[in-house]
Amino acid sequence: MRPPDDLRAAFEAYLETLTFAPELGSLDEALRYALEPGGKRIRPVLCLAVAEAAGGTVEAALPAAAAVELVHTFSLVHDDLPGLDDDAERRGRPSAHVAFGEGVAVLAGDALLAEALRLAVSYDDPRIARELVEATLGMIGGQHRDITGDDRDLAEVERLKTGSLFSASVGLGLRVAGVPEAGQRPWRAFADELGVLFQVVDDLLDEDGFALRLGVEGARHLADDAADRARERLSAIRADTSVLRALVDGMAVRTG
Amino acid sequence: MRPPDDLRAAFEAYLETLTFAPELGSLDEALRYALEPGGKRIRPVLCLAVAEAAGGTVEAALPAAAAVELVHTFSLVHDDLPGLDDDAERRGRPSAHVAFGEGVAVLAGDALLAEALRLAVSYDDPRIARELVEATLGMIGGQHRDITGDDRDLAEVERLKTGSLFSASVGLGLRVAGVPEAGQRPWRAFADELGVLFQVVDDLLDEDGFALRLGVEGARHLADDAADRARERLSAIRADTSVLRALVDGMAVRTG
Repeated sequence: MRPPDDLRAAFEAYLETLTFAPELGSLDEALRYALEPGGKRIRPVLCLAVAEAAGGTVEAALPAAAAVELVHTFSLVHDDLPGLDDDAERRGRPSAHVAFGEGVAVLAGDALLAEALRLAVSYDDPRIARELVEATLGMIGGQHRDITGDDRDLAEVERLKTGSLFSASVGLGLRVAGVPEAGQRPWRAFADELGVLFQVVDDLLDEDGFALRLGVEGARHLADDAADRARERLSAIRADTSVLRALVDGMAVRTG
Repeated sequence: MRPPDDLRAAFEAYLETLTFAPELGSLDEALRYALEPGGKRIRPVLCLAVAEAAGGTVEAALPAAAAVELVHTFSLVHDDLPGLDDDAERRGRPSAHVAFGEGVAVLAGDALLAEALRLAVSYDDPRIARELVEATLGMIGGQHRDITGDDRDLAEVERLKTGSLFSASVGLGLRVAGVPEAGQRPWRAFADELGVLFQVVDDLLDEDGFALRLGVEGARHLADDAADRARERLSAIRADTSVLRALVDGMAVRTG
């Protein structure tokens, strides 16, 4: 089993070799900018780790992992737009709309989503693309609830905004590894807890969301519970899930 | 063979029954608004007509036809945004960003693209989704050239912006009908001419693009030539292409 840092390095190397549709012309530059290192790559690393733990290969899962990361990046590019969250910075650099202009940022996000789906349909199993598309729609629905203030149920908004793509990261890893539907349930239960853990820790670091609703102590408690449940879910899986356990441990104590 | 109006009615009826991902919640309303009747539905009608002429059924082609129309609609919603073409009206009504706000319009466009791909991956043949995704990337690349002024070659910009999706409309119809790659060439040659015809007539009606570059007479000449070549291409196809011929004739003389 390759440790998380090794998977991350394999993913970065794959991303560097990835080519986009030539028809995009110079828009390619904006896609590369948005995808540049600096992100935690937690979703693709999760996808690769699940694929390997479930008996598949990292190599076979790389396009799926990239598809998930491209969907995530598309959502960041669009969420940063003035009409949405209006964020001028992303990972310490000007966000895409500041660097390239609003129109180009809209198109770059569109192209990232389309490229993600091109990667997903590069597999002959249509269920891979179906799962990614459904997760994308869940994520968009969550973002819509968020910006329209229809977020009375914060847990539901976060489940859609963050959980959908975490769930797809795990689901795509399982599908690439050829795990039958019936055997996917315990892995997916793990994904749900990991999504909650990630989001609550994120809110603690950003001092928003659950940290505002529940206070720092309440949110910390929620995160610890989710981490415990994620570890329990892993124990129920009959496979070497040591790398996934390391991901849970790292996520529970992350500070950035 | 069902005439164009009949195909259009079948398409509208299908679109009305089409449901979107429940996770989209109230964003659904913005998607419906953008998709409401008023458009010519030329791409889906083309897709359905090709499917039927090539030996398939209209019913089997309806999801593919809708996928193409959703990609087209997604591009209109995003192109109308202030950061792009900044159009406040579309088909005589407030455009989506005016009716729903900019943020919601961005998300509605994203959701339309994702829903289009959901329809495309509902087929087990992955080549259907692959073709749609590639056409979408071509279209986005054309729009990027257009807004960045990198449009010295107007024919190339239009081939990408309009031609990509016309080509996919025909290609998806062929794939749904099960036409093998080798037999697709004459149909695709027809699609290329039809795309040019559509775009040049569009420019004549809008008094821009080719009409500005070549003058009204020059553009009219270009359109007539494309219509002639489209009819020639149809004559080379061994199938009942009478409905496609009617589409060419209608397109050549359309006034709106």
